[in-house]
Formats: sequence, C-alpha cells, structure tokens
Amino acid sequence: MSKPGLPRGTRDFGPEQMFRRNYIIDNIRKVFERYGFQPLETPSMENLSVLTGKYGNEGDQLLFKVLNSGDYLSKTSGDDYAAGSKSLTPKISNKGLRYDLTVPFARYVVMHQNDITFPFKRYQIQPVWRADNPQKGRYREFYQCDADIIGTDSTLSDLEIVWLIHDVYKSLGLGDFELKMNNRRILTAISEYIGEPGKEGPLCVAIDKLDKIGLESVITELERSGFSSKSCELLSEVIQIKGSNEEKVDKLMGLIGDLPNGERGLQDVSFILGHASSKKDIQLKLDFDLTLARGLSYYTGTIFEVKPTSVKMGSITGGGRYDDLTGIFGLNGVSGTGISFGIDRIYDVMLELNLFPEEQSSNTKVLITNFGEKELDFSLKVLNDLRSAGISTEIYPSNAKMKKQFNYANKRGIPYVAVIGSEEASNQTITLKDMVSGSQDQLGLKEVLEKLVV
Amino acid sequence: MSKPGLPRGTRDFGPEQMFRRNYIIDNIRKVFERYGFQPLETPSMENLSVLTGKYGNEGDQLLFKVLNSGDYLSKTSGDDYAAGSKSLTPKISNKGLRYDLTVPFARYVVMHQNDITFPFKRYQIQPVWRADNPQKGRYREFYQCDADIIGTDSTLSDLEIVWLIHDVYKSLGLGDFELKMNNRRILTAISEYIGEPGKEGPLCVAIDKLDKIGLESVITELERSGFSSKSCELLSEVIQIKGSNEEKVDKLMGLIGDLPNGERGLQDVSFILGHASSKKDIQLKLDFDLTLARGLSYYTGTIFEVKPTSVKMGSITGGGRYDDLTGIFGLNGVSGTGISFGIDRIYDVMLELNLFPEEQSSNTKVLITNFGEKELDFSLKVLNDLRSAGISTEIYPSNAKMKKQFNYANKRGIPYVAVIGSEEASNQTITLKDMVSGSQDQLGLKEVLEKLVV
Repeated sequence: MSKPGLPRGTRDFGPEQMFRRNYIIDNIRKVFERYGFQPLETPSMENLSVLTGKYGNEGDQLLFKVLNSGDYLSKTSGDDYAAGSKSLTPKISNKGLRYDLTVPFARYVVMHQNDITFPFKRYQIQPVWRADNPQKGRYREFYQCDADIIGTDSTLSDLEIVWLIHDVYKSLGLGDFELKMNNRRILTAISEYIGEPGKEGPLCVAIDKLDKIGLESVITELERSGFSSKSCELLSEVIQIKGSNEEKVDKLMGLIGDLPNGERGLQDVSFILGHASSKKDIQLKLDFDLTLARGLSYYTGTIFEVKPTSVKMGSITGGGRYDDLTGIFGLNGVSGTGISFGIDRIYDVMLELNLFPEEQSSNTKVLITNFGEKELDFSLKVLNDLRSAGISTEIYPSNAKMKKQFNYANKRGIPYVAVIGSEEASNQTITLKDMVSGSQDQLGLKEVLEKLVV
Repeated sequence: MSKPGLPRGTRDFGPEQMFRRNYIIDNIRKVFERYGFQPLETPSMENLSVLTGKYGNEGDQLLFKVLNSGDYLSKTSGDDYAAGSKSLTPKISNKGLRYDLTVPFARYVVMHQNDITFPFKRYQIQPVWRADNPQKGRYREFYQCDADIIGTDSTLSDLEIVWLIHDVYKSLGLGDFELKMNNRRILTAISEYIGEPGKEGPLCVAIDKLDKIGLESVITELERSGFSSKSCELLSEVIQIKGSNEEKVDKLMGLIGDLPNGERGLQDVSFILGHASSKKDIQLKLDFDLTLARGLSYYTGTIFEVKPTSVKMGSITGGGRYDDLTGIFGLNGVSGTGISFGIDRIYDVMLELNLFPEEQSSNTKVLITNFGEKELDFSLKVLNDLRSAGISTEIYPSNAKMKKQFNYANKRGIPYVAVIGSEEASNQTITLKDMVSGSQDQLGLKEVLEKLVV
C-alpha cells in the first residue's frame, strides 16, 4: 500500500496550529461583530460563469475547475478533444472553487439586493483556492478574512476601517505595525498634474513596484510605457514630498487641490487623519503614503495596507474603497469599502513575536488517572463535576501504568493530573499534581474546584 | 448580462442563518473542548488515491473531482478520450473534494502516527461535498461535525461519547431526543445464534431498514439473500424482546451470553447503561435498541444514533466504535470510537422548536444616528466608548433622513437607537430610544453604558 500524502500546496492543521488559528479567528470575529459586521458564508463551488473573467487572464488560469459529475464526456465530440484543454474545459466543467471572497460577495449582493438592508456590513472568513505554484508562504488553499461596508460612499466608513484594523490588531496583542493609507483619486489627480491624464492605471501598476525595484526602475518602466520625461520628473518630485501626514496634505493641496479628484481625495485623507486619533485608546502609526497604489484595479478611493514593522513580511492586511463592485453582475452604483486580513501571515508574525498565549497549545486542564473498576465511580464523579464547572477535563481511558498516563499528560501539555487511587477513592479525595511545579496536594473535590475554576 | 446563480445543491448562508449556525457550532465546540477533544482541519482537496475505494462504488461516483491545472490533456491520447469518462478521469484529475471527515482523519493519523500522543481525541468541523441528487435536506456541500477518540479500545470512551452527546444537546437547549444504542458484536452473536454465522453484514443492512419497510419486508429480504425460515423466525423473536434496557440485557444474556461476541457486546452495553446515569445532571432517554444497525460497514462495537422525539426527522447524530479505521492506509490495530453531529438537521430541528435565542438574529445593539459634521465628534466619542465597553455599535454612515436611519435599525433588528442631534451634542447627552418598547430617555454617556453593559 502506498503511503498517503497531501495535494501540493495544501496543509493539515493539527491541534497546536488550530488552537492558534482559532485564537486569531475568534478575536477577529469578535471585533467584527462589535463593529456591527454581519457574518456571511458562500459555497466553496461557484458556477464558472460567475468566476471567469473577474481576475484577469492570469486569474482564470489559477481557478480550480470541478469536473461535471456522471458521464461528463457525453456531450463532447472527438473534435472537442482535438481542440485541446482550453476549449474542452467549458464542456466538461461548469463549476470552480472560489478564488477570493469578493466576487462571491458581489454575487450574493446582486442576488439578494431586494432583501438586503443597505448599508450592508458583512464579514466572511472562509478558505479560497488558487492553482498557484506553491512556495514559502503561498498555498493552494488558504483562508481569507474580509469585512466590507457596501451601499454607502461615506468617508466615515473608511474611517471605521482604520479603527477596525486598529482594534483587530489590538485584540491580537500585535501593536507592532504600520498602516499605510493613500487615495486612488489622488493618484488620478497626480497623473493629470504631471500631464498624463487618463494614465492612472499604468501609473498605479508602476508605483506599486516602488518597494521592490526602486524609483529609477519605476521611471524607466513609465517612460517605456509612453510617459514623457517631463512627466516623470514631475512625478518624482510629487511622490518624494516629505513631512508629516498633515504637511504632505498641505503641500499636495497646493499642487493638485484645484483638480476635482485631487480636492476630493485630499479631503478624504484629511477627514480620516483628522478623526482617526480621536479614538481615546488609539495607538497607531498611520502613514499617508503617496507611493501606496495597491495592485487591484477595482479600487477607486481610499486604499489601505498594513505591514509589520519588526518582522520581515509583506502586507498582512489590505483593502480600500471601490465604486462598482457589483457592476460585473449588472448592478451598478453600489459603492463600498473593505478590508482583508491575511490570517496565514498574521499567524507567522505572531509566532515570530511570540504573541500566542501559552494555554492555547492545549485545551485540557486536568487529566484524571484511571486505576480501574474500583476507583471508577469516584473518578467519573470528579470528571463530570469538573466538566460541569466548565473545566476541560479528561480521564485516561484504560488503567494503563501510571508512567504511561503521566507521559500522556506531559506530552499533551496538560497542567494538572488528578490522581485517584484506592486510598483517594475511599477517602473521596484527590491527589492533585501540578505538572509544571511538580508539587502535589491531597484535596477534597470542593477544594479542587475552587483551585481550578478561573 | 445573465443573472448570477448558485451551483445546484449549494447554499449561501446570510447573516441570520450564520448567527444560528455559529450558535450551534460555537456551543458544540465548547463542549468538545471541555471533554478534551482537540481541533483538526484537513484540506478540502485530497488526492484521489486517498479518497477512491473508501466509500464503495456508489461513493466513488459521488466524489467531486478537480481538473488538473494547466494543459491537463497533454498526457492523454485520442484513445483515452474514446475509452470514455470513466477511464479518462484518472488521467485528467488527481484530486477530489473530501467526501467525509473520517477518511481524511484516518489519513492524518497515519501520516502523523509518530507525532501523535495516543489516545488521540480530535474534533473536526468542516464542509464535505457529495455529487448527490439534491433534494429537501440533502445538499452537495454540507458541514460535518465529528469527534473521535482513537488509539484505545476502552468502553469508557464509548461512555464518554454518551455523555458528550448529552452535553452537546444540553448546551443547545435541545432535550427532546432519544439516544439509541446497540453493539455490532451483539448483532454478530445474533447471526450466530440464529444459525447464520458470518452473515452479520447482510443482517445489519436488512435490519437497518426496519424503520422504513417494517419487519415483514426485512424478513423477506433476508430470506431472499439466503437466510433460512428457521433463522428468520429466531431473529424475529430476538429483535422483538421487550422490557427495560436492563431486562433486555438479561434476556439476551440467556440467549447469546455464551457466545464470545454476545458476552463482550452485552458487557459493553451493561457498562454504559450502568454508568451513564451516574452523571448527576443527566436527563437522557437512552434506549438499548436491538434493531439499531447503522449502515456503515466499519463499525465493530458500540453504535449510537440520535433522533428528535417531537419533530419528524431522521437521525441527527450517529457514530460508534471501529476497530480498524486506519487499516485502509496500512496502519492496523488502531481502535477508536466517534460521533458525528448533523449540523444542518440540528439547525432545522432547533428552528422548528424555536430554540434559537432571540438576540442571535443581529449582533448590533446600538445604532448611533448621523446628523452631520457638527455632531460628529461627540457621536464618534460615544461610538468608540460603547465599543470599548464591548457593546456592538454602529453609526449610520451618512446624515440621511432620520426616517431612513430608524428604518435601518428596525430592519436590522437593532434594539437601541442613540439619537445625537445638535442639542444632545452640545449637552453631551444621548437620547436613547428603546426600539422594542418605543420609550426614550435623555441620558449621559455613563448612564448609557451602565444601562447597556451586560
């Protein structure tokens, strides 16, 4: 028999990883709900008509497609086969695995537009699948964790996203990050200001690479795609404007404040900067960064990105405002703003910074020993009473040697062992051993409960 | 543009359904962890070599298969195409969606046998996929919710499953159910007793249909598959034994107690019956039911099934002991016992019995009105202070008409609206309207917090 394995780019999450992942997800969910976001889940499979054409050509390549059930070849011909994979696919597969949570969300909104109360604040935490080449930190199945406010173009909602990001990371004990913010309207205004109106698309794509390839190469790329050297010179000046967030806004107001997109974009940035720090517990490095562009084409207003400051890692959270998410399904004019938390990367950062609580590695607090039939009645009473008090408790299932039972507790990281031998059973007492300190006490059931209930 | 839709047999879970589903899942998870079960998640896709041949021919048909990425036809020939779907499939697809949580669990145990501390108590709550014909209550994507104790053959673990079932349903407020229990060894002994040794397989399959087709048809089916009429007569007598659980054990002991399987099976049943009621808060209709057989072939010991008593519905929970789950992957002799909760059916039962808490329909407790820029500073202060106190709060994102803002609160089922107009903003007060009673009070922020913090 061949050894069983896992598909490339997929992972099992054992107990230790699951406790940590649940710690992250539970905390995020709590914050989402405190902000009034409502949960949504969509099916793993979507019709390919819903998915295809939404992520560009490259995205379409990365969709996992599901074979139609039954005799899927029955409606094909030898010619279809001869025409090759690409043209055979739509004839043998009409479903695919979701690629992100955004397109399914847009589909949901369009299908339920008459039932939804707008503005609609939804969150969604589910896996997505991409047939990408697996590498360190890149998987073929991974979780996305999105929150969106849709059906309003109010900048107040963008401000809420800033606070949401702050409170999520606060709840995780991860304060060590920088929140970069920019606005697509400002980038549009800049393209007008430098004399290349309508070219904000290539501008964003190029600027997005600044971090990786540097200013010089970005300029080269822009010149190659038709930007004049005068434009590039102006651009270099603009995106190198220095100063505090407020100083940058002031300087830009002088340059692009007369352009409608410039004015509105800078107003939005000012509004967010002006109010963000009014939250009394805020501790946030909020950086108005003109070089932040975000790759995705659907953003139209405020954009966000979070990077940890002391760990080498790309963006762990990103999002922004879009004017027309549901237009792809025929429902126009629905503006929204949203954010996506990268759980896998947050996990890695928290692990490196040692931010997971100790007790997350095991849930069981007490192991009750098993000496056999005679002691069983009292042992089971203790077991049930501890559990009723909310204490995670196990009993060793067989009367194996004590060494084996203690070994089990040790390996599982269970902090207390309740020894109930014949003496204890007849006295109705418990010898409670603290597995960390090694100390042990003979206690009554009441005392054990008092000691262990938090 | 065509209207977007969902693949057959799949569902969106909107906010209301999600709150209820999360209520069920969170409660079950809490009980699982109180019992020391540890979380596990496996990938949605498994290699077809792992999945195929584990669920019988019918099961193999119901596997969703994922097309290989890239030019998946490159390694095929026209002959492969001509040979038809069945023989082409393994050449163009090597992955499938998981069909249940049991086979992936067995694969995980085999792959991690050297790292796992046995006995291993794991739980797993994830969706599974089956290309079944969708009908009422049967979906192509649905959740399974499993807990297993593996690596021990102790009957104490079966007893734990009984208590686990009890506590799960108690936590859901669903006391209205019957737990049927039987033991495969007893069924094996019965097949020996009636003179058809080795035929426990067809016996189980036939008995499993008793509920649906009645005793007479079961007998007919057994006779057709070669059972003698004498055997069938004896069988009818045995499975119609009446009395309390204990009386049934006694009577059976007289009939099959001398057969090793009969003795051991009845010992297990006695052990569970004898101890189950020792749990002090127990309220459980536990029924030793000789006609319970469970379809799945891998059970070898105690078997369980839960049905609601006052709602017409099939099994909502089922499981039992197996001796050789991991044998399919070459690791023999690993005994275990487990249980699976059917979340979709539990959802339907709880909905029918009106068991979901009212407040599960929305998470937001307070909506703060939006009158515009002037009132914004104080409104945002109230917003952040309420959230900091753990109260789910929203602010309406734009200064729309009050009617619209109140409508939003109404439709969302938000119980309080905090009106902050110009008067309130200048007094630093809040007019808090109770949307249920209609009453309203002008309060300070402190008073609002006192009133709303639970």
